[in-house]
Amino acid sequence: MAVDNGKMLAWALGREKAPLVLKNAKLVNVLSGEIYPADIAIGEGVIVGVGEYAGEEEVDLAGRFVYPGLIDGHFHFESSMVCPEEFAAAVLPRGTTTVIADPHELANVWGAEGIRYFLEATENLPLNVFFTLPSCVPATDLEDNGARLEAEDLAPFFTHPRVLGLGELMNVPGVLHRVPGVWAKIEEARRHGKIIDGHAPGFTGKELAAYRLAGVTSDHECTSPEEGRERLRLGMHLMLREGSATKNLLDLLPAVNRFNVSQCLLVTDDRHPDDLLEEGHLDHMLRLLVSHRVDPVSALQMATINTARYFKLWNYGAIAPGYQADLVVAEDLTNFKPYAVYAKGRLVASRGELVVPIPRSQAPLPGTRFEMAPLRPEQLKIPAGNSRRAWVIGLLPHQIVTKKLLLEVPVVNGCFEASAEADIAKLLVAERHHRTGTVGVGLVQGFGLKEGAIASSVAHDSHNLVVVGMKDEDMLLAAETVARMGGGLAVVAGGEVRGTLALP
Amino acid sequence: MAVDNGKMLAWALGREKAPLVLKNAKLVNVLSGEIYPADIAIGEGVIVGVGEYAGEEEVDLAGRFVYPGLIDGHFHFESSMVCPEEFAAAVLPRGTTTVIADPHELANVWGAEGIRYFLEATENLPLNVFFTLPSCVPATDLEDNGARLEAEDLAPFFTHPRVLGLGELMNVPGVLHRVPGVWAKIEEARRHGKIIDGHAPGFTGKELAAYRLAGVTSDHECTSPEEGRERLRLGMHLMLREGSATKNLLDLLPAVNRFNVSQCLLVTDDRHPDDLLEEGHLDHMLRLLVSHRVDPVSALQMATINTARYFKLWNYGAIAPGYQADLVVAEDLTNFKPYAVYAKGRLVASRGELVVPIPRSQAPLPGTRFEMAPLRPEQLKIPAGNSRRAWVIGLLPHQIVTKKLLLEVPVVNGCFEASAEADIAKLLVAERHHRTGTVGVGLVQGFGLKEGAIASSVAHDSHNLVVVGMKDEDMLLAAETVARMGGGLAVVAGGEVRGTLALP
Repeated sequence: MAVDNGKMLAWALGREKAPLVLKNAKLVNVLSGEIYPADIAIGEGVIVGVGEYAGEEEVDLAGRFVYPGLIDGHFHFESSMVCPEEFAAAVLPRGTTTVIADPHELANVWGAEGIRYFLEATENLPLNVFFTLPSCVPATDLEDNGARLEAEDLAPFFTHPRVLGLGELMNVPGVLHRVPGVWAKIEEARRHGKIIDGHAPGFTGKELAAYRLAGVTSDHECTSPEEGRERLRLGMHLMLREGSATKNLLDLLPAVNRFNVSQCLLVTDDRHPDDLLEEGHLDHMLRLLVSHRVDPVSALQMATINTARYFKLWNYGAIAPGYQADLVVAEDLTNFKPYAVYAKGRLVASRGELVVPIPRSQAPLPGTRFEMAPLRPEQLKIPAGNSRRAWVIGLLPHQIVTKKLLLEVPVVNGCFEASAEADIAKLLVAERHHRTGTVGVGLVQGFGLKEGAIASSVAHDSHNLVVVGMKDEDMLLAAETVARMGGGLAVVAGGEVRGTLALP
Repeated sequence: MAVDNGKMLAWALGREKAPLVLKNAKLVNVLSGEIYPADIAIGEGVIVGVGEYAGEEEVDLAGRFVYPGLIDGHFHFESSMVCPEEFAAAVLPRGTTTVIADPHELANVWGAEGIRYFLEATENLPLNVFFTLPSCVPATDLEDNGARLEAEDLAPFFTHPRVLGLGELMNVPGVLHRVPGVWAKIEEARRHGKIIDGHAPGFTGKELAAYRLAGVTSDHECTSPEEGRERLRLGMHLMLREGSATKNLLDLLPAVNRFNVSQCLLVTDDRHPDDLLEEGHLDHMLRLLVSHRVDPVSALQMATINTARYFKLWNYGAIAPGYQADLVVAEDLTNFKPYAVYAKGRLVASRGELVVPIPRSQAPLPGTRFEMAPLRPEQLKIPAGNSRRAWVIGLLPHQIVTKKLLLEVPVVNGCFEASAEADIAKLLVAERHHRTGTVGVGLVQGFGLKEGAIASSVAHDSHNLVVVGMKDEDMLLAAETVARMGGGLAVVAGGEVRGTLALP
């Protein structure tokens, strides 16, 4: 909340000049809902006064807007496909100064070692990085993943000052059926007074009530205003998500009103590097909101103070004495294009460019762990039997949910085959953690592939190897290519590797 | 947040009938800002489900409104002049189910013993009673009061589950000048993650910024919208007060807007027994708000969820699974007249009448402690010297602040005298804790007394004996009468005691 330092009181009282004063700001006050001119006095990384101040160093903002540094309430570093240092370098110039990360993906591969890596790698970043602990590793008991995390594995992390809660509790049946391992984690979180994030797409009514009763207080998986409203009614915070694969912000907007807006917050969840660089991060969401007639102060509240309060980050997300000096200076509240970004009281970005070095963490990467049994061509076959129709996974654009379709599928030599005409591809999932040799094959509609194959070891939540393709030979080559790289993505067509991205 | 009980999950899921279901409610949801029909399922004192439920016991509410039990964010039991049990009996039928009390007055007389008494006396009430610890006993270092409470005296209380923070920090100069004893209390509160309530009438600008920087996050002493706005801007919660002596609710209303309403809460502070019985408690404030065009959901938010969240009472103040079942059933949202009140899942009041016995606490009253040196007539004299004018305390209606006036005052035998015509009375304050014999006399304008005298040992904050009168003899008799009772109030006129109220 504040620091008990005589110097800071002297700065606040104006008895001594504060080390840094931002003069002539147009302050966007997310606490009072007002915008007004003020100087902002900063010392020791903290805002010590707002009003008329003189500083040792003074920066004239010439009437530019200043709003609190943006806070992403739920996301995965892994989705950015870069290390935390590079992620920080990408989002700080866009005004994001705080993130709450769930190391769910790395933990599915590396377990507690993955969490430790992230905690160490983010220790000295100019970006404020907090964590929720992955609650569901594996995601369900049916998964073939790399590691198991039980309550006793998570327990030591709950006392870490940057661990804020238990992450997306996607094992909803485990909660409702009182699976002891799941409840042990819930109780561990509660015992430490930490929040419990939810993940309950499609759940409704009494099941959702029971889930809430268990102590879950947010959901980021809503796709319709009805789902959003039901969660808000239950006292769950509504995380409005705009990721790369899943975009729900505008769909959920009708659920937000002036009575419940303080329980709504912006999250990116899974945001890919191209979208980060081209569209942006939370700044992109603010632009979207304002272009859809949300007033800028409400939009900023959802990206700052609301998120901070939900996570009990009492001195983040606002511009007032005692709050950490994370600030964005911008020309307007429509483009949200930062003229300057301050994090912990220090200028970190200017006109879109990072102006501080990002310290490289000495934390050792857990390293490559890709242990897949070699694939055999016959493992890719899908025998048709006497049928001409097959169950096919139907994709929906920008949605995480899929449909179960029964479609006519071409049969060649007694096996179902892909069809460019019907937009049906073959899908292979191969275990890659413990060389179990487990393989699953199926068909998927709506992927849009015309020829060749794509293989990826980025495959939520267990991150086994997933291959989509139109031809078995290309699929095998793509799979082998990713295996050789120790993880990543590979694109193959006509028997040739056309592109790779190594992601160890 | 919730309880980990298999039975409760079964009730929530509808697999078993909940012990109590309120059918056909019109639910006022302060979380989502909506009003809609629903059943409310209750078990173990907790709301387990909202929707369509069947119960072991079912109560048909026939479409009546149900809103969360009201929460008073700051008040003093002492001002009600009755014991906590009687206070609970008075406010429960009006819909108040939770109060945050500051035992500031009793602590000024009895110290830690006063706090212990209140904690014990409120242990088993149907009313939820929480406390903030009195931060300023004595209120300032200039006071002659009964006890001193240092940080080490308060420390053991901070771990009590019903102690929520440090109470109204009225020693603002002590905060700003870094008086070690004051800061030791601030640090003790912070160390326990507890909130710090403020009390800073008249403070503004840099001094207020420094006060906020110290960690103070509320103020209940604002009297103008400007004061209110300044505090909201600083991230302090604005407590809108409507007491008996001080009524600021409507004055502050212009400071409240849709962006900051979640930081506003209703408090009564000092509410006298006659007002409690005639006008009401928080229900009175709700009526006032709605009659001044505040929408009922916002008004209720300020009396429920906002208060709960400020005090980190995560399972109070709303109607949703996991929240404590404190509920008010009412015919409308204009009169807020409870048809029924449920506290901890139990019917406690019906149509304005208490329907449960209030358990008498076995906690011993600290007892009478009234130790005043006898008063001598000459102690009441105010020598005029050569002057015809005197400094007079000018009262302002319904305000706690006073004016300093220089007025013509009648002089008799070389001493200033009271004047009914000019509405000037004499004022005596006599130390009553340690027989120090310290006495202060002065003049007060605007009290409205025509003859006689009134003496009271209820005199904030040190509760020395205060006597206001038009005649010295009556003042002495009134003082002696209160001293004989061991504390209380006495009214005297024409040399006769006309009325007394013993308040040991």
